[in-house]
Amino acid sequence: MAVWEALLELADDHLVLGHRISEWCGHAPMLEEDLAMPNMGLDLIGTARTLYDHAGKLEGKGRSEDDLAYLRDEREYRNCLLVERPNEDFALTMLRQFYFAAFMRPYWLAALKSTDETVRGVAGKAEKEMAYHIRHAGEWVIRLGDGTEESAARMRDAVEALHIYVDELFDSSDVAREAEAHGILPVRADLRDAWDRTVAEVFAEAFLDQPKAAYPQRGGREGIHNEALGHLLAEMQVVHRAHPGARW
Amino acid sequence: MAVWEALLELADDHLVLGHRISEWCGHAPMLEEDLAMPNMGLDLIGTARTLYDHAGKLEGKGRSEDDLAYLRDEREYRNCLLVERPNEDFALTMLRQFYFAAFMRPYWLAALKSTDETVRGVAGKAEKEMAYHIRHAGEWVIRLGDGTEESAARMRDAVEALHIYVDELFDSSDVAREAEAHGILPVRADLRDAWDRTVAEVFAEAFLDQPKAAYPQRGGREGIHNEALGHLLAEMQVVHRAHPGARW
Repeated sequence: MAVWEALLELADDHLVLGHRISEWCGHAPMLEEDLAMPNMGLDLIGTARTLYDHAGKLEGKGRSEDDLAYLRDEREYRNCLLVERPNEDFALTMLRQFYFAAFMRPYWLAALKSTDETVRGVAGKAEKEMAYHIRHAGEWVIRLGDGTEESAARMRDAVEALHIYVDELFDSSDVAREAEAHGILPVRADLRDAWDRTVAEVFAEAFLDQPKAAYPQRGGREGIHNEALGHLLAEMQVVHRAHPGARW
Repeated sequence: MAVWEALLELADDHLVLGHRISEWCGHAPMLEEDLAMPNMGLDLIGTARTLYDHAGKLEGKGRSEDDLAYLRDEREYRNCLLVERPNEDFALTMLRQFYFAAFMRPYWLAALKSTDETVRGVAGKAEKEMAYHIRHAGEWVIRLGDGTEESAARMRDAVEALHIYVDELFDSSDVAREAEAHGILPVRADLRDAWDRTVAEVFAEAFLDQPKAAYPQRGGREGIHNEALGHLLAEMQVVHRAHPGARW
């Protein structure tokens, strides 16, 4: 049974996005965000750790969370493409966070009824965190979308740039479908309405329009990534690979 | 009265060290530390924010926490030299954290009796955080000092490299002395015994010796910094200075 691989997809989403937002560490535009962004990163990486640990146990080959995070290559990463998009600017960073959280909040709410105890445990903590991410990042989407001429233009650019990566969130891979059939993970396609509602509310306040996604991009679940992921993984894995377990 | 400048010294110590440890964001040697190090950074930056805010109000010129953090130059920064030391490796990072926390824990414990309400509030939260930093970083000092041949050698190098920056922690500048005379901040020199005890305990377990500090380095409180601080500030301030308040 390939449930462990479905957990890996989910863990990869969280680790990669956690790292993306952590890249702002040390050069946020204001002290408030110098706390908020790493905090959101820690939420995501904390969730990833639990999921990797659980996936490793279900796989049963003795791989630890660190083995799964640091010793797999780009093609073995199963995250969706949205989370690996580079930060570009503060507008895109906040929109990406908002899109992801607007998906994950209803996902974790549904996962509260998972047949897997660990998944239920993660869901209870993560749904609250995602509610905060929606609120925090959503406020920035509004503040920038309804801000100066330049901030609004940047937010519109971010919408344009990210929109083609949204549909992939609602796709279930073969392994995810297996986990869904066992009631372990929620059915992704069922969450579209909730996502659309959350985004529509914020976009109305932000004076933003949702474009039609002309050419939705997919491939992350099969390990087909953008070049950007390779750079992220190199950065993330370099110290561990040089000094496994910091044991020198 | 120059109390606000004494708070600035303290805030700068916390912001600079918070940024130093945050530089590990995204390339920690293991997932556990990928959470622990940014978490310690957030503790420090959170304390810095409160102190900057308070300092700005006492100064009375309308400077916000962001003005103080992002719009002062290297020569205006008042942090001690220890906190600006570059990360080098995991051993030095953890020893620097341990040294600082071993000082700040008794400092905040004494500050619980401050005549200033805001300082008392910070102290109540920060003394617990510093107890955690002592424990976490102290465990690493032991684990590496009593580890492999290479990890022990690296830890000894870190002790050698940092020791000359310890004495400055116990010096009080003129503005700090004024705050101490008013019972607002603790007398730094009084904390030497507590620091020595904490370090001696951990060093005994880590099989490390404390060298005599032959040429203690000082100057941070007068704005005389190492080149390393300039790089840190450039990195930290670039986004804010380009886009003040992210208002574009």
